[in-house]
Amino acid sequence: MIAVDWGTSSLRLYRLDATGMVLGRRRSESGALISKGRFDKVLSGEIAGWDDPLVLMCGMVGGRGGWHEMPYLDCPAGNGELAQGMRRIAAEGFDGRELWIVPGLRDTASDAVPDVMRGEETQLAALLDTLPGGSHLVCLPGTHSKWATVREGRIRRITTAMTGELYAVLREHSILGQLMPAVDTRFDAYAFDAGLKRSAQAGGLLHHLFGVRTSSLFRKFADEALPSYLSGILIGHEIRASELFSRSPRPAQVHLIGNERLLASYAHALTALGIGVQRHPEDLAARGLHALWSRRTHEPR
Amino acid sequence: MIAVDWGTSSLRLYRLDATGMVLGRRRSESGALISKGRFDKVLSGEIAGWDDPLVLMCGMVGGRGGWHEMPYLDCPAGNGELAQGMRRIAAEGFDGRELWIVPGLRDTASDAVPDVMRGEETQLAALLDTLPGGSHLVCLPGTHSKWATVREGRIRRITTAMTGELYAVLREHSILGQLMPAVDTRFDAYAFDAGLKRSAQAGGLLHHLFGVRTSSLFRKFADEALPSYLSGILIGHEIRASELFSRSPRPAQVHLIGNERLLASYAHALTALGIGVQRHPEDLAARGLHALWSRRTHEPR
Repeated sequence: MIAVDWGTSSLRLYRLDATGMVLGRRRSESGALISKGRFDKVLSGEIAGWDDPLVLMCGMVGGRGGWHEMPYLDCPAGNGELAQGMRRIAAEGFDGRELWIVPGLRDTASDAVPDVMRGEETQLAALLDTLPGGSHLVCLPGTHSKWATVREGRIRRITTAMTGELYAVLREHSILGQLMPAVDTRFDAYAFDAGLKRSAQAGGLLHHLFGVRTSSLFRKFADEALPSYLSGILIGHEIRASELFSRSPRPAQVHLIGNERLLASYAHALTALGIGVQRHPEDLAARGLHALWSRRTHEPR
Repeated sequence: MIAVDWGTSSLRLYRLDATGMVLGRRRSESGALISKGRFDKVLSGEIAGWDDPLVLMCGMVGGRGGWHEMPYLDCPAGNGELAQGMRRIAAEGFDGRELWIVPGLRDTASDAVPDVMRGEETQLAALLDTLPGGSHLVCLPGTHSKWATVREGRIRRITTAMTGELYAVLREHSILGQLMPAVDTRFDAYAFDAGLKRSAQAGGLLHHLFGVRTSSLFRKFADEALPSYLSGILIGHEIRASELFSRSPRPAQVHLIGNERLLASYAHALTALGIGVQRHPEDLAARGLHALWSRRTHEPR
C-alpha cells in the first residue's frame, strides 16, 4: 500500500509492505496549499512507479480547501473510531486503485473554543495501541503545535498553540526579525534558557516579545543568539500555558512527535523544567495509516 | 518655536507661540526610518516658511539609527530631568536656528529586562505637571503600547507590549489574516468583547490565537468580525498582564494617550473591565516640548 501524509506545505509518501514495513520514501514540496485544484495530477506524478492498489491519505488533503473535505470526528476518539471514519474518495485516472482519507479530529468539550487536528491524529494512531493504560500527554511541535491528552487509548483533548507560525512571522516581518541575521543561526542554549526563564516572569508574552528588542538594544545577547532567545520565550509560554502545567499532579513525562531539530528545542525546554521526554519520529504517520487500515479490515464492524 | 514629534513612521510638526498655543500643524509620512541619512534635508523641507529660531524634537529622531543618538535617562525622571537632559545638536543649513532633542527614558529597575520609551516621555511631560499627587497609570496604545506609572510627578516605571505590531503582522502575514477581508473592517463590539473574555480564560495567548482560526472554521463569527475578535484577544492580554492587574488595590482609572480610533478600542476594553478612563489627544507632544523648554529656560540650573 501507499501511505500519504499530505500537509499544508509538504507531501510525504511511503510505500509499505503488508506488515507496515517501509519499502520506499518520497518527499515533495507539493503541499495541500499549492496542490489546490490539481490534487489528482500531483498524486499521480508523485506515486509514479509505485503500482500498489491502495492509497491511504491523511492531513490537510482532507481539510477545507483540500481534495475532499472530510467531516471532523469528535473527541474522545481512538483507532476504532478513526478507522471507521475513513472514507474512500472517487478519483479518475488511478486505474482502479482505491484512495482513502482519514478524518480530522475535533475537541468541543474541553475548552470554550473548539480545537482541531488533521494529520496529527494519524501520527497519534501509531502510538495509541502501544501506550500502556492511564493518561498520557503528547506534544507535536510545529507551525501549529498540538497537545493531545490520551487516556485508555483514546484522544480526549486537543490544544493548539500558534508558536511556530508566530516565530516565523516575527522573524520575517517584525522589527524583531530586523535585529537578527537574515539566515537562521545555530541553537544558542544560553539565550534559549534565558528566554525560557523570561516566560515564567510577570508581564505577559506581548511584553516579553518587546524585551527581545531591548535585549538587543543593550547588547545582552549577540545578534546571532536573538533567534534562540525569541524561541525560548515562545516555547516557554507554550509549555507553561499547556495542559502540563494545569494538571495536578503534573505529568512526569511528555511524548514528543516531530522532526529532530524542533524536538531538540522542546526536549531541551521540558528537561530544563524537570519534565521527562520520550521522542518519536515524524514519520509515525505511515505507521498510523497502516495501523488504521489493519483495524478497519480485521475488526468486526 | 517649532515642535517636532518625529517617530519611526511619521513626522508631526507644530508651530507654537510663546505661550505654547498651536499656530500651525503639518504632518508627513517621512518617519525616522525613511529619513535615515538625510534628516537635515527632510526637516528643512518640512519647516519651509516657518522661520522660528528654535526647533525642539522628540521621538526616534534621537534613537539609534536616528539623526543623533541621545543617551537614555534612567527612571524615575520628571520634567526637571527631561528638560536638563535635552541636547542641542549641530546641523548646517538652518541659518543659525537652534535644534534640540529630548532624551529617551529607560527603566532598568522594575523588571528583569530593561524597558524604554522615546517620544512618549514628551507626551507624558505635558501631563506630569497637571496630574495631582499620588500614583497614576498611563497607557499609550500603539505599535508598541507603552504603560507608564507616574508618582509625584515623575515617571517610575515603563512597560511595553508589542500589541499593535503583533496585530499587524498576524493580519498581513499569518494564516489568520487569510481568513479576514483584506481591508480593515468596522469595529465589531460583539466579537471584540468575545476576544476580551477569551483573554481571561486558560490556555495562553498562543492558544487563543489559534482559536481565531477555529472560530472562523466553525463560523462563530463572520469574516468581517474576525479582526475585532483578534484585536479583543490581543488588547485583553495586554491589559490583563499590565501593571493595572498586578497592583493592589487595582487603580480605578487609567489615562489614555493616542489617536481616537485606537483609544476607542482601549477605552471600550477598560470600561468593560470596570476601569475608568481619561482620554488625552495624541498631539500632547507639542505641549510637552513647550513645557520642557519652559522648564529649561525658567528654572535655576
